[in-house]
Amino acid sequence: MIVKLEKVLAPHRVSTARDDLDNWGRDWTRSFVVAPSAVVFPETVQEVVAITRLANTEGFALVPSGGRTGLSAGAVASHGEVVVSFDRMNRILDFNETDRVLRCQAGVVTAKVHAFAEENGLFYPVDFSSSGSSQIGGNVATNAGGIKVIRYGMTRDWVAGLKVVTGAGEVLELNRGLVKNATGYDLRHLLIGSEGTLGFVVEADLRLTEPPAPSRVMVLGVDRMKDILSVLTRFQADVTLSAFEFFSELAVERVTRHRTLARPLESSSAFYALLEFDAQDESPALAAFGDSVASGWVSDGVMSQSEAQARALWALREGITESIAPETPYKNDLAVRISDVPGFLDDVEHAVGRIYPDLEICWFGHIGDGNVHLNILKPPGLAVTAFYERCDAMAPELFKLVAARGGSISAEHGVGMLKRDYLEFSRSAAEIEIMRAVKEALDPNGVMNPGKLLP
Amino acid sequence: MIVKLEKVLAPHRVSTARDDLDNWGRDWTRSFVVAPSAVVFPETVQEVVAITRLANTEGFALVPSGGRTGLSAGAVASHGEVVVSFDRMNRILDFNETDRVLRCQAGVVTAKVHAFAEENGLFYPVDFSSSGSSQIGGNVATNAGGIKVIRYGMTRDWVAGLKVVTGAGEVLELNRGLVKNATGYDLRHLLIGSEGTLGFVVEADLRLTEPPAPSRVMVLGVDRMKDILSVLTRFQADVTLSAFEFFSELAVERVTRHRTLARPLESSSAFYALLEFDAQDESPALAAFGDSVASGWVSDGVMSQSEAQARALWALREGITESIAPETPYKNDLAVRISDVPGFLDDVEHAVGRIYPDLEICWFGHIGDGNVHLNILKPPGLAVTAFYERCDAMAPELFKLVAARGGSISAEHGVGMLKRDYLEFSRSAAEIEIMRAVKEALDPNGVMNPGKLLP
Repeated sequence: MIVKLEKVLAPHRVSTARDDLDNWGRDWTRSFVVAPSAVVFPETVQEVVAITRLANTEGFALVPSGGRTGLSAGAVASHGEVVVSFDRMNRILDFNETDRVLRCQAGVVTAKVHAFAEENGLFYPVDFSSSGSSQIGGNVATNAGGIKVIRYGMTRDWVAGLKVVTGAGEVLELNRGLVKNATGYDLRHLLIGSEGTLGFVVEADLRLTEPPAPSRVMVLGVDRMKDILSVLTRFQADVTLSAFEFFSELAVERVTRHRTLARPLESSSAFYALLEFDAQDESPALAAFGDSVASGWVSDGVMSQSEAQARALWALREGITESIAPETPYKNDLAVRISDVPGFLDDVEHAVGRIYPDLEICWFGHIGDGNVHLNILKPPGLAVTAFYERCDAMAPELFKLVAARGGSISAEHGVGMLKRDYLEFSRSAAEIEIMRAVKEALDPNGVMNPGKLLP
Repeated sequence: MIVKLEKVLAPHRVSTARDDLDNWGRDWTRSFVVAPSAVVFPETVQEVVAITRLANTEGFALVPSGGRTGLSAGAVASHGEVVVSFDRMNRILDFNETDRVLRCQAGVVTAKVHAFAEENGLFYPVDFSSSGSSQIGGNVATNAGGIKVIRYGMTRDWVAGLKVVTGAGEVLELNRGLVKNATGYDLRHLLIGSEGTLGFVVEADLRLTEPPAPSRVMVLGVDRMKDILSVLTRFQADVTLSAFEFFSELAVERVTRHRTLARPLESSSAFYALLEFDAQDESPALAAFGDSVASGWVSDGVMSQSEAQARALWALREGITESIAPETPYKNDLAVRISDVPGFLDDVEHAVGRIYPDLEICWFGHIGDGNVHLNILKPPGLAVTAFYERCDAMAPELFKLVAARGGSISAEHGVGMLKRDYLEFSRSAAEIEIMRAVKEALDPNGVMNPGKLLP
């Protein structure tokens, strides 16, 4: 197998060195076995085709590898697979100013697209904390979301075309950058979010848009979770929001201590909402704030008066993950309909409190799109393994609460191996059966990222 | 079969009357045989399931029927199928103000959604001339576009969830109104635009948004098609456009005569661009207009000063189809990348001029999204059948020009029976094979709208 791969590529682009296997064989998860048999670094679409055909004839499996920032073990090679790294397919190929579409290879880092757009007076709005290392191919494969979804949508909304190598080794050119194309099933959308299980994205056409206007950031103190939704509705009536995040008092405690930041408000509240909107909407935003205080939803608030203040307020939200990392939290990325968030948070608090009254929850997330990040903090005395075992044992109970509200057990991090065996809590048996048949159609020999996504 | 259908529904909701078969057995196309064996009018999801299961066990085929405004014979029953009309599934079921999502049955007329949104201070932005009779189920099945795509996208962009009855008679609840849901293949997007060949949409969750600001309409005279794109790029740099349409001098001649409208400008140009933008963008728009004149792209222009003037300018664009109807045009709904439009128009003019120098073309369309409507006008002397035969004979030549630019042979009207046998000009053999396998997975006995979309 290695010899044949070396023939298809070149010896220096096939590695079986231990360090390389460890590095390219996994994503940001740390609890899965990492055991690839090789890592390969194709440079062209034709090389990806050749690798895929070889996998079919020789009977080995492939795992795609982008920026390796995934959180669901979608890009972990645990069973002797060959890892296909897109690190060397990292070029922006084309840009058309009229179409506002850029074509790039799968291995282009997200931040490079941001920079390219800016150089051309435009904007690529999909953004998240890992944009300095995540790659476009991985963004597409997971339909990455991030912090601007409420205004700009997910990666899916910015993909005008995809070039894909299917599990059968066919090259598909899906949609080719068209805005309108009503010629049958949109396989582009089928591939987006399929986590490399149907085919590997090798090129993407990404739409760019006008840069956003200067913005303001507001942080509001809210005591009852349900009032956050009243605040959201009140603001949305008059203000175009580009972010509506929330975090709990526990999160503020941790992040202000960890980063030695000032607390946002003099008083403390059970929850905080962070809103971002165009500066030109400042007056309607202040009116909405006034109404929210008058209605008793909001106890206090602050609005940025400069870019530096805006960044400082954002730091309260963006620093949370890092600040609780020492407490090795048990993380879950969940979504329900926006209006269901308060009820769902109550359900979870109640369930955790009943089963493990000694565990603390740190809540934060993108409440404007119904996406909450549940972080259960490890108590100081407990060993990490024992803590994770306790939390894992509770997972089905948690996912039942998600299912009862028709929610999603993975809002934006994908399924991978982490949630594969829980898929039934978000997708019906009939859907999973159809997904299997679709997989069979694109990847008949099961060489594309097997053991991921489908139970 | 009829007896069994009457048992599943009720006798008065199963018709074999000639008039009913003629009425519900077809869409707006007029050149296909209309020969259904019955029309049924389900009122519940469970009735649609029962009809589908009966189709599977008894071996008959189903054709979905919405507002019957389709232009590609996607909803024509030519081979003794049972037509499933959604006319009686016409209720708005739910609306959540926080989520801004409304749930409705498939048979709700588009204009009813517009009215409902307006009553609730919101806006449903998918709009087109048939919105008074087209139904949401059909909009979803064809991924309907319309006149605001440049700003608001297609129907796909507004569907937060779908309830679907598959060809196997399974009910799928796809995405359930969630904003974020990274749990495997997005079957919702697979169903959108599948023209009833995989399953029938029975309910949809539609997102609403803030109403648009007051707008201005501008009509510009442009002599060279390629300059229209320079105008587009110049305006887009500073102005948020909600429409960017174009039409030719021939179209203006026909529509001003037919509706006895005033010409938009004193001078005449080869082409006209119609732009719509928010009134607050009036100054940057006037600056862009000035630059466009100075650059020699635009010869003259007019901007609406009132709602009435805006409507009058829009009438120039919206009245074209009706004004050329007496000339029984041979229509084609095509798309290329935006930047390719001028070259593509040249290609087509040249090909038509070479093959049939006596035929005139009336061009118009949504140039801001690369979608052009090609209308070849019938010369007065020629019989309709002979004219259509000549045009049909030229279709492969035309579609080759589309394919050469990676375009779409159906931008927004779907494939149906009209373009089924030409699908290879926009989709590769590998894609069509995958589409067949997907169809097999959702509709194993081929009861859902057979003979449509797939060659």
